[in-house]
Amino acid sequence: MKVIPHDPGKAEHVSTEGARGVRLTSLISENEGADNFAMRLFDVEPGGHTPLHEHAWEHEVFIVSGSGELRGKTVMPFAAGDAVFVEPGEVHQFANTGAEVLRFICCVPMIQE
Amino acid sequence: MKVIPHDPGKAEHVSTEGARGVRLTSLISENEGADNFAMRLFDVEPGGHTPLHEHAWEHEVFIVSGSGELRGKTVMPFAAGDAVFVEPGEVHQFANTGAEVLRFICCVPMIQE
Repeated sequence: MKVIPHDPGKAEHVSTEGARGVRLTSLISENEGADNFAMRLFDVEPGGHTPLHEHAWEHEVFIVSGSGELRGKTVMPFAAGDAVFVEPGEVHQFANTGAEVLRFICCVPMIQE
Repeated sequence: MKVIPHDPGKAEHVSTEGARGVRLTSLISENEGADNFAMRLFDVEPGGHTPLHEHAWEHEVFIVSGSGELRGKTVMPFAAGDAVFVEPGEVHQFANTGAEVLRFICCVPMIQE
């Protein structure tokens, strides 16, 4: 077992087309010995958003701080303490519509790789 | 896709032997359509702890607020913003050694069921 300390220096700018003001920190992956799913931390600046896209795997998300909108076929607001489930194949985007940084945990299955 | 709103009323007291002052809220499970892994929220009161136990599946944890100790073969402190990875078969316990409620996200594979 291991503690992975909070380390802002590990955050990487997300340069994927359609992403704006997004940083990703890998927390738990195969590098830590995980076989089934990975845990990542996202920070989205005010006005920023993840790409509006879809893919074959699900997202399990927990909003740590800030607030925003889940955009796809519909638009749903979310705030700190909420969870978000995106099923495989659903178009989705996480947008920061608040005044502070939006921080969330996003877990994905290894099946994607 | 769906937003699962924060709802303190959904928290359930954990009565497992060895647990003290622990409440569990299921956030994402098969009920939400998840097939691969589940996301749960834990609240541990000051002085409280999860059972000291082991099992055949891993834990992927993110500390939302508060601080404490990861106890097993060794003892490791953790605080808000840290992640914790417990491999299958490792003895482990999450203890709240701080003055405020310890809140963490814990994801587990469905394989356990």
